[in-house]
Amino acid sequence: MTYKIIGQPLPRLDARGKVTGETEYPGDRAMPGMVHMKILFAERPHARVVSIDTAQAEKVPGVLAVFTAKDVPVNEYGLQINDQPVLCGPGSQKEGGDIVRFVGDQVALVVAETEAAAAKARDLIRVTYEDLPVVSDPLEAMKPGAPLVHPELGDSNVCVHYKIRKGDVEEGFAKADVIVESEYRTPFQEHAFLQPEAGLAYLDEEGRITVEAAGQWTHTDRKEIAHALGLPEEKVRVIYPAIGGAFGGREDISVQIALALAAWKLQRPVKIIWSRRESIIGHGKRHPMTLRARWGATKDGKLVAAENEIIADAGAYMYTTNKVLGNTTITSTGPYFIPNVKTDVYGVYTNNVPTAAFRGFGAPQGLFMAEMQMNKLAEALGMDPVEFRRRNALKEGDTLGVGTPAPGPVTVRQVLDAAAEKFGWDESAKGAMQDEGAVVRRGRGFACGFKNVGFSFGYQENCWARVELHGKAEIEQVVVYHAGAEVGQGTHTVMAQMAAEAVGVPYEKVTMVVSDTAVTGNSGSASASRMTFMAGNAIKGAAEAALKKWQAEERPAIAEYTYLAPKTTPFDKETGHSMPNFAYAYAAQAVEVEVDTETGHVRLRRVVSADDVGQAINPALVEGQIEGGVVQAQGYAVLEEFKVQDGRVLTDQLSTYLIPTILDIPEKVESVIVEVPDPIGPWGARGLGELPFLPLAPAVAAAVHDALGVWIDELPLTPERVLRALGKI
Amino acid sequence: MTYKIIGQPLPRLDARGKVTGETEYPGDRAMPGMVHMKILFAERPHARVVSIDTAQAEKVPGVLAVFTAKDVPVNEYGLQINDQPVLCGPGSQKEGGDIVRFVGDQVALVVAETEAAAAKARDLIRVTYEDLPVVSDPLEAMKPGAPLVHPELGDSNVCVHYKIRKGDVEEGFAKADVIVESEYRTPFQEHAFLQPEAGLAYLDEEGRITVEAAGQWTHTDRKEIAHALGLPEEKVRVIYPAIGGAFGGREDISVQIALALAAWKLQRPVKIIWSRRESIIGHGKRHPMTLRARWGATKDGKLVAAENEIIADAGAYMYTTNKVLGNTTITSTGPYFIPNVKTDVYGVYTNNVPTAAFRGFGAPQGLFMAEMQMNKLAEALGMDPVEFRRRNALKEGDTLGVGTPAPGPVTVRQVLDAAAEKFGWDESAKGAMQDEGAVVRRGRGFACGFKNVGFSFGYQENCWARVELHGKAEIEQVVVYHAGAEVGQGTHTVMAQMAAEAVGVPYEKVTMVVSDTAVTGNSGSASASRMTFMAGNAIKGAAEAALKKWQAEERPAIAEYTYLAPKTTPFDKETGHSMPNFAYAYAAQAVEVEVDTETGHVRLRRVVSADDVGQAINPALVEGQIEGGVVQAQGYAVLEEFKVQDGRVLTDQLSTYLIPTILDIPEKVESVIVEVPDPIGPWGARGLGELPFLPLAPAVAAAVHDALGVWIDELPLTPERVLRALGKI
Repeated sequence: MTYKIIGQPLPRLDARGKVTGETEYPGDRAMPGMVHMKILFAERPHARVVSIDTAQAEKVPGVLAVFTAKDVPVNEYGLQINDQPVLCGPGSQKEGGDIVRFVGDQVALVVAETEAAAAKARDLIRVTYEDLPVVSDPLEAMKPGAPLVHPELGDSNVCVHYKIRKGDVEEGFAKADVIVESEYRTPFQEHAFLQPEAGLAYLDEEGRITVEAAGQWTHTDRKEIAHALGLPEEKVRVIYPAIGGAFGGREDISVQIALALAAWKLQRPVKIIWSRRESIIGHGKRHPMTLRARWGATKDGKLVAAENEIIADAGAYMYTTNKVLGNTTITSTGPYFIPNVKTDVYGVYTNNVPTAAFRGFGAPQGLFMAEMQMNKLAEALGMDPVEFRRRNALKEGDTLGVGTPAPGPVTVRQVLDAAAEKFGWDESAKGAMQDEGAVVRRGRGFACGFKNVGFSFGYQENCWARVELHGKAEIEQVVVYHAGAEVGQGTHTVMAQMAAEAVGVPYEKVTMVVSDTAVTGNSGSASASRMTFMAGNAIKGAAEAALKKWQAEERPAIAEYTYLAPKTTPFDKETGHSMPNFAYAYAAQAVEVEVDTETGHVRLRRVVSADDVGQAINPALVEGQIEGGVVQAQGYAVLEEFKVQDGRVLTDQLSTYLIPTILDIPEKVESVIVEVPDPIGPWGARGLGELPFLPLAPAVAAAVHDALGVWIDELPLTPERVLRALGKI
Repeated sequence: MTYKIIGQPLPRLDARGKVTGETEYPGDRAMPGMVHMKILFAERPHARVVSIDTAQAEKVPGVLAVFTAKDVPVNEYGLQINDQPVLCGPGSQKEGGDIVRFVGDQVALVVAETEAAAAKARDLIRVTYEDLPVVSDPLEAMKPGAPLVHPELGDSNVCVHYKIRKGDVEEGFAKADVIVESEYRTPFQEHAFLQPEAGLAYLDEEGRITVEAAGQWTHTDRKEIAHALGLPEEKVRVIYPAIGGAFGGREDISVQIALALAAWKLQRPVKIIWSRRESIIGHGKRHPMTLRARWGATKDGKLVAAENEIIADAGAYMYTTNKVLGNTTITSTGPYFIPNVKTDVYGVYTNNVPTAAFRGFGAPQGLFMAEMQMNKLAEALGMDPVEFRRRNALKEGDTLGVGTPAPGPVTVRQVLDAAAEKFGWDESAKGAMQDEGAVVRRGRGFACGFKNVGFSFGYQENCWARVELHGKAEIEQVVVYHAGAEVGQGTHTVMAQMAAEAVGVPYEKVTMVVSDTAVTGNSGSASASRMTFMAGNAIKGAAEAALKKWQAEERPAIAEYTYLAPKTTPFDKETGHSMPNFAYAYAAQAVEVEVDTETGHVRLRRVVSADDVGQAINPALVEGQIEGGVVQAQGYAVLEEFKVQDGRVLTDQLSTYLIPTILDIPEKVESVIVEVPDPIGPWGARGLGELPFLPLAPAVAAAVHDALGVWIDELPLTPERVLRALGKI
């Protein structure tokens, strides 16, 4: 279908401000009378705070206050459960509120007239700790008798256990001609946003505690702040200035409550900027997992059974682990039909940095395992891996591991064929790109991915929007109110395009009013690849209601609308049976790598990414998302190694935690935009944000295997691991 | 202090509409395409719903749907805890969701084109019940081994236990010259609002499920509806049309969820009106209590010790019992300083109609006991009861039972003196109004009362308001947005007066936009005598912020403000030590009664009520509240006997449950408005709504004693009880 504004590669609304430097990020915000905060982090993985002596700190000239646990009205928070103290220490009314459980737990807040005075005072706080036993390995932490991270929550560190029981795996394996069994390991990953955590809090003209910070969901930030301060939500306001990247790492609270508490107690504007090191130890990471898989197929290339056991490190607090692992559970069989499945997925508390949302939300790990299994099975069967995937790709009506089909058009075959065609995948080549004699060898690899759109497991997905139509005879201006966070993905541009299309006016007539709880309703999080889908439906609903009022001669015509997505259901406890999602999107990637057998260095020469976005609202932004996702996944696949020892972070700077630079990124990323409309998506759109991240790591691992003839089952594929696999070290 | 508009007896904003009949109450609302609902109540106190057969019902012509437990997305609700199923029956995902626990539990909803068809179909629903043992007496229900009302919540029916431990009562009693020990019984009370529960639900233009019904807190209604429907709150809208009385009885959900569910499922407007009988069995009542007291005083008239044990019937669900009994705990020592106090207060689940908020919120029962003890002690000491009260009245800084002083000016002495003076209380008369020979005897009685203003026990009290100033050079119109419910008390008139005073414009320039969650923030409940105090502070804050903007030349100048009351704290579990409230108000009443010793009939000849309202915003409305409170308390004291047998309501019509008619009410109610400003009240105002109810019952009981020479310790003082006390039956 052709639309007027939908489908146009229009320039981003925020382009000029960001390019000229006019745009203010939270770290750029300032106010008269502003004072500065520093946080005393625990810097130890597990200990009881016996006492905190702030006497010397308070004497530092310019210091206004030192806050500890006793100053927090309701000393707890958390996005899923309130298992984390705002400040750890004595005087907390929370059970276990005097325990620090990871290095980034916060112990005291210092506010002073200058940053230097706050830092000096922070360093003069004397804390007496009683160290407690540290559990840092989730496999050890699962064992009965292991020291408990949260004794107040139960007698085991296992905080999540999901089961899939579909068909009968033993019957399935009995039919198998080949069986592949492997154990995989995936690492922590750091979001490494451009802008570390920062913010400014103050009382606005109407006496509300106002926090300007970078987050992903204004309304849950507000809720968590209000809860900790024991205040009604109306008394708290959250505003997002420009956000320098998020990727899931800003879904959980970082500086928001601390800033609000200080601004409220002192009745003055308070500012903080975290250093890169504070950011790295202070916010959640991607879940590292150990994934054990045993899959069987018949010699005609049909999957018959899959048995999986996955253990994920939840770190010190829940954050969104319960939801992330639900997604790992669903994706761990790939976008394939497997009649018999048995899967157990565990989340385990440790004294490591908490693990949290990160682009893909549990899918990259599940899919790394599934796609590695697919490539190994294809090899074992002597079959081309693309052809093997074709034979097993989910079709309309095929059931997932959860026992129900994926809703909406299932387009695994379309993206698979599109990627193979664009790449020029030669099935007869049978993976022979390598030249065994060469020092630098080439290989190609293939993988697929899929991802739900929106929140899952029975949560009633919803999104708010308000549309105002101004003018007299004609609509002169359209004002769209929406709380969805512009985290760098271009969502406000996409929203303005959708509003212009819905109202039937040029794009230039749309003004966006965004991300301020004082003037917008709850639009949900900028995560789960949901924003285009949910906001589009909300804006469409509001625009239609406003147009009705316009036609009834209301001036201005104003309408609010909350879109509700179709219902979903949670996992059955014993079998996982459910309808966990209302929409999915699909991707496939083919890659070509170059491996230096002397240095072990893996270089991406070419990536073809085919992503079904349903309908591209703005193709330039779709390409931007695909390229960004591929680069971030490349870091995950070959470069980024987050090291933790006994709960302590060894890679706490970007000098030791290496992310891709301009010299590292793939030589060529070719985006293939597939558009099979989802009937319930706005103008057919699905979700995209996480999709291009998903297939890359297993495709690269397959390409390295193609180049070297060895399988490396642990990410990232660093030079050290490559050389070790080659037997050279 | 003199104000321009505050203090004027201005006419009510809603007077004309109510007098002419133009005003629409929920039962008057209608829409095109509207259909009708009837509810199938359980009509049995305790049973498991084994099956529900709706086949015959569904065949009735005009029937659109029959809904049962399986149709409710999240089948639970409750203002404090979610212990009640929306619909009781099989297929409920809630543990114990198939159990009915009182006669008014709801089992099925029928919607049809006509009321008659809905009623016919309701009567054709066949429910198979398995009866369970009924506990109807809270004293029996407390005993170990009693059948459990909520086995899913624990192994006892005791759902609340509060303790006060102040000083040492044994030491106190050792110093006492007289000790009075008694057991009192107070009854259920039915709110008997003019208008039974009714409402209309539909989808508004913007697709929100909109419920128009009579309640006390739009925003908690919305929250409870959204929870049960598994929807975001933005998708639900609650509007209050005119409300025909509330008195606490509309704080809990009645028809709201049922209507919303049906309108949402059928996408049509749905209406319901409860009959008086449905209202009586369907909504909560005042808590009946058994109150045991042992109080001691020295011969110079100083209280030295009080020991109390109070057992309250919570009925089948929690409603607000936990909060009501907190208030009983505080008021059970009266507005007097007692150095040594031991109190235990229990709430017990039974299979009776749930007990809930009712004007006074636990204070009438606590104060009935306390004031009876005071009058009996005065008699035992041979001291005038007013003088005895003077010697013990709380003074500034005196601690309550909770171990902390009441905040704000403590004015027991002022109201006591004002009431005695107005009444012409002759202390030398020593209670000798009766003429022992006469058939009709006269007596006089005196009692005091006090009540917190606003929510207690650590809840951060808050109230939202928005003020818009329109005009160019001058302010031409002030629009006040507020969600506070006009339950008949005149609060919107009071708000408009306060807004006019705050902005400095005539009253006529103020327009109120009220009680619609789509356009107002959360202003809290019309209860706890809080509305004038909280709304006044909120409107003042918003008006001041708007005036600042006006002065900065903003046109229109718009500001929102959420007022936060000072912090309070919950009871210490073992001692009750706390600062539970931020404001109190005080009252005293003197009454004269006439008792017919042949018929047993008690007639109120004269009531003098002195109430410290801090500052009367509208004296005509203050008098209206005092007169209304006295009449309702008269019903409680002498007339209203709510009878329950084995969980079944015997007085389920106003023909058997007798409330005062015009012929019953006191011949003369004289209001004495005392005005000692509360420094944190708006223009000094305190709260009034519940105050005049409080002293009446014990004052009447004292007057009956004065007339007859006998103490009657059980309410109401019906002819039967009077004759029994006289030994005549």
